[in-house]
Amino acid sequence: MDLECIINSIRVKKSFLCVGLDPDMDLIPSHLMEEKDPVFSFNKSIIDATKDLCVAYKPNLAFYEKLGPEGFVSLKKTLDYIPDDHFVIADAKRSDIFNSAKMYADTFYNYFNFDAVTVSPYMGKDAVSPFVRSNKWAVLLISTSNNSASEIQNTITETGDPLYLDLVKKSMSWYNEKQIMFVVGATRISEMNTIRKKAPNHFFLVPGIGFQGGDFDAVCYNGFNDACGLLINISRSILYAESGVNFSNAAHHIALDIQQKMAQVLKDKKII
Amino acid sequence: MDLECIINSIRVKKSFLCVGLDPDMDLIPSHLMEEKDPVFSFNKSIIDATKDLCVAYKPNLAFYEKLGPEGFVSLKKTLDYIPDDHFVIADAKRSDIFNSAKMYADTFYNYFNFDAVTVSPYMGKDAVSPFVRSNKWAVLLISTSNNSASEIQNTITETGDPLYLDLVKKSMSWYNEKQIMFVVGATRISEMNTIRKKAPNHFFLVPGIGFQGGDFDAVCYNGFNDACGLLINISRSILYAESGVNFSNAAHHIALDIQQKMAQVLKDKKII
Repeated sequence: MDLECIINSIRVKKSFLCVGLDPDMDLIPSHLMEEKDPVFSFNKSIIDATKDLCVAYKPNLAFYEKLGPEGFVSLKKTLDYIPDDHFVIADAKRSDIFNSAKMYADTFYNYFNFDAVTVSPYMGKDAVSPFVRSNKWAVLLISTSNNSASEIQNTITETGDPLYLDLVKKSMSWYNEKQIMFVVGATRISEMNTIRKKAPNHFFLVPGIGFQGGDFDAVCYNGFNDACGLLINISRSILYAESGVNFSNAAHHIALDIQQKMAQVLKDKKII
Repeated sequence: MDLECIINSIRVKKSFLCVGLDPDMDLIPSHLMEEKDPVFSFNKSIIDATKDLCVAYKPNLAFYEKLGPEGFVSLKKTLDYIPDDHFVIADAKRSDIFNSAKMYADTFYNYFNFDAVTVSPYMGKDAVSPFVRSNKWAVLLISTSNNSASEIQNTITETGDPLYLDLVKKSMSWYNEKQIMFVVGATRISEMNTIRKKAPNHFFLVPGIGFQGGDFDAVCYNGFNDACGLLINISRSILYAESGVNFSNAAHHIALDIQQKMAQVLKDKKII
């Protein structure tokens, strides 16, 4: 999916919501456990409940790998079920030498048909480049939402800038805003502000709203650009809004609340 | 497996060889393709041919994920087949926020029974810590063997040291030499020398000999410590020494050559 498609989808759906498809076997409603493939049944219901309200889905591979070969099957069925007009990100945080990175990219793009993969940039350009293809994106870990993120990422380098900003500058010399996005946590507002100044045109994938404590308004204030420029990911607050048989209804209502807030921001910013 | 076991195994086997189990479907001997599980058949033959000559195995997950659910099954059978006295490293280069990292660790340790996982340190301590458990190791990417490695890793920071050395120092404040190892490429001899001075007791996992051009003698000269301190990984030179029905014999002979060179170094260094 190319940049124009993503921006168009945001305008049509009046939303920049990305739903994190992270099926946790300890939290999936118990009645689904009787199904043949509880993970796919859960994802299918969540997709049905949210597809009109979001522009992207982001399965985190950790949740599927934990389930062994069956997890792979559930993930493939999930990818096949997601409508084509959604941008789908493999949250895999991969990074490897060129030929191994190419294998990962083949898996995510050719087998699963993802549009993008999250990639750690620590190994340099040749570990990122296999993930950048025509209409396929590398989403680089820049300023992550976890508590320890700043330990390494905010190290000041000899340029006088923090490492995360060096990485933004370096990766912008490798690829443009139609090829890469940046992961910038909702818990890293000051970093987001700094990165937006350096990268006015790049999309940010923003985890960390909800359970991790990130603030929606602060993200919009500091992260927006002329074309929106944000994909805000929400996982647990939507997926596990309710634990009983009405879980997908509850998921729909939470997603609708978020989408309506997003529509208002898009109007305020004159994007729609 | 604890540090003493690893060192003891090196003394008994007179070897510090790690065999990279990276089954490439384009390179596996064609007669194996008639088997029910060609990848497991290939790995089984390689393990039979090398188990007395190496102390560790390192499957790279990219090669298995590429095969879909069947790859997961082949990997599990491979792990079950590797003798218990070998140290087995999941070359997965993972990195994620705490709960997702814990899921990956559960997969590698509880499901597959790996002893260690390669981990990218860019996200900080809380992305590493789920991989450090009793007798389970995080092997941190520090100075990798790929061409672009120095782009980010050798960035000079405000401490005056390169980033890779800051990471060594920082991770040594998190965990000791019985909990973490460092990935240091055979193509990064100057970095290896610098890291060894800072981390005299830690083991290094060393990729990059053979196909990537790393030099065995230079690695031994710069990387050795009092207890060996090296696990040198060789993949392609052993796995694909010959493409026909005698591939495992050829693999054995290459591994034997390497083991004999390693035995000599261990004698020269008075470790055996």
